[in-house]
Amino acid sequence: MAQIAVVGAGSWGSALSIVLADNNHHVKLWGRDEKQIQEINERHTNEKYLPNINLPENIKGFTRIKDAIEGVEAVLIVVPTKAIRNVLVEIRQNLKSPVTFIHASKGIEPDSLKRISEMIEEEIPQIIRKSVVVLSGPSHAEEVSLRQPTTVTSSSIQISEAEYVQNLFMNRHFRVYTNPDLIGVEIGGALKNIIALGAGLTNGLGFGDNAKAALMTRGLAEIARLGIKLGANPLTFAGLSGLGDLIVTCTSVHSRNWRAGNLLGKGKTLEEVLTNMGMAVEGVRTTKAAFQLAKREGVEMPITSVLYDVLFNEKNPQMAVEELMGRVKTHEVEDLSL
Amino acid sequence: MAQIAVVGAGSWGSALSIVLADNNHHVKLWGRDEKQIQEINERHTNEKYLPNINLPENIKGFTRIKDAIEGVEAVLIVVPTKAIRNVLVEIRQNLKSPVTFIHASKGIEPDSLKRISEMIEEEIPQIIRKSVVVLSGPSHAEEVSLRQPTTVTSSSIQISEAEYVQNLFMNRHFRVYTNPDLIGVEIGGALKNIIALGAGLTNGLGFGDNAKAALMTRGLAEIARLGIKLGANPLTFAGLSGLGDLIVTCTSVHSRNWRAGNLLGKGKTLEEVLTNMGMAVEGVRTTKAAFQLAKREGVEMPITSVLYDVLFNEKNPQMAVEELMGRVKTHEVEDLSL
Repeated sequence: MAQIAVVGAGSWGSALSIVLADNNHHVKLWGRDEKQIQEINERHTNEKYLPNINLPENIKGFTRIKDAIEGVEAVLIVVPTKAIRNVLVEIRQNLKSPVTFIHASKGIEPDSLKRISEMIEEEIPQIIRKSVVVLSGPSHAEEVSLRQPTTVTSSSIQISEAEYVQNLFMNRHFRVYTNPDLIGVEIGGALKNIIALGAGLTNGLGFGDNAKAALMTRGLAEIARLGIKLGANPLTFAGLSGLGDLIVTCTSVHSRNWRAGNLLGKGKTLEEVLTNMGMAVEGVRTTKAAFQLAKREGVEMPITSVLYDVLFNEKNPQMAVEELMGRVKTHEVEDLSL
Repeated sequence: MAQIAVVGAGSWGSALSIVLADNNHHVKLWGRDEKQIQEINERHTNEKYLPNINLPENIKGFTRIKDAIEGVEAVLIVVPTKAIRNVLVEIRQNLKSPVTFIHASKGIEPDSLKRISEMIEEEIPQIIRKSVVVLSGPSHAEEVSLRQPTTVTSSSIQISEAEYVQNLFMNRHFRVYTNPDLIGVEIGGALKNIIALGAGLTNGLGFGDNAKAALMTRGLAEIARLGIKLGANPLTFAGLSGLGDLIVTCTSVHSRNWRAGNLLGKGKTLEEVLTNMGMAVEGVRTTKAAFQLAKREGVEMPITSVLYDVLFNEKNPQMAVEELMGRVKTHEVEDLSL
């Protein structure tokens, strides 16, 4: 049985800790909030993020990254993307021997336009980094913590490392598939949050399921277009970390990105929405990053562009959606082709 | 403005009649039920199928196909697939000059394994058939009747005919895209009902959104596998009539197929479910047809096969879903590749 550090004690970090603990691994779960870590260690619960769930006793909480990563063979990073570099620096300063870096966060860094695996490679020297693996797929944390059937993708450029992570997590309820297309898995997981924002926006404006399905269909096409330009395998976007994750995120009212979009559609400003949410809304940052990436790569991404204007240029949401619906192209396959 | 016959006064036939009527066409709507047609002509409503909707006055109801098709330039067929041949025979016996046949029904005929366009070609001699066009996409009838934004695909092997139908239906709320891949559009539209049955089944068994997203992802992959073997364009399955329609049908509790699957998951027998529904459940017939097609074409369709066994061989639904979740393949792209 392995010792694994889980860096990030939000709902997804806690749910993945449960999967590892169910597989008899020793989980060292890090969070910054002392009260929360005390609750995890004494009451074996994490009520704010996973209400009504008992955490197995082989999950131990830590408030210092140094303590959490001591003696582990793998570190799972699962914090909001804007916190990642800080966390990585702290890990680098304290890590003594090479470990596998796994991440389950979803986003692209604005301006640098780096994927998370690239940020890890930048911040963690090779001498203490065995490899970088991403875990991604359609997976509400609550359902995973309830041992509901869930499937995800483990991806790394070294397939043996993806298989190592597959073996750590795989069990009867939690099925892990490998895919060597790291770029495609990370792009699909990150950019689906943009489409979830858009799906929430159409709902907030009073549009129905027909409009949402159209948005998701065309959204996946533009994500794939960008991903393929960056070197991804087109098939990855039809898989769990592409289509699968898109479906879960866009059709659940629990998704933060969906909720943020919904509030925007109802006429709130971005500032009001972010204040109201009180948690990271990855899709906002990701829209900015994807807009910049599309520009750099010369890829047409109409949904991303329009949402960028709604978020950052005060474009009217109603006009934005009407513009998307009224686009001139009428030959579908032409529009889908990559 | 054109005169168009709409053969089938259910919710989808009535909703499409509204679109045509909004575009100032004269719609001749056929239904077998005299009371319903009287209601359409006198009260301009169709309460059973489109509650609380006023039908435009340029929709006229008819109880005899002969009267409905007289003088029209196009006939839109929108009846359950098992009624199609009878309706086509009646049209053939009464049609005097060539018209465009449009259909908006979704299914495959068991045993003959024909798509609906093929059934039309078989039953209607070329001398009275200008062409065959299918209209398909993510479109709840209720939303269309409320003029909510909706996008669909118009497909025909002659692109000019697909464009003719595009022009008939296109308006501000109802966007029509053309696609020359008739096979792909018909296969996607028909087989998505199988996956909707499966999605309902997982819900009835108490599984959550993670399992549903996995099922939909792998379901679309197996639909595409079969479609491509039959000559479809892979891109069509990523489009409105593939992915788009799959999303709408699997994520709505209004879908009959989803509801039938849900009841099966809760332990009802197929007979009880069909009695309970009181309406055609296309997915049941389509599962049989797709199972036969997959066998004939030598294509692996694990979800379809398992659902076939649940529907027709008394396989236990719980075991069926566990079997699907526990499949041996662990390399995702291998499984997705076509």
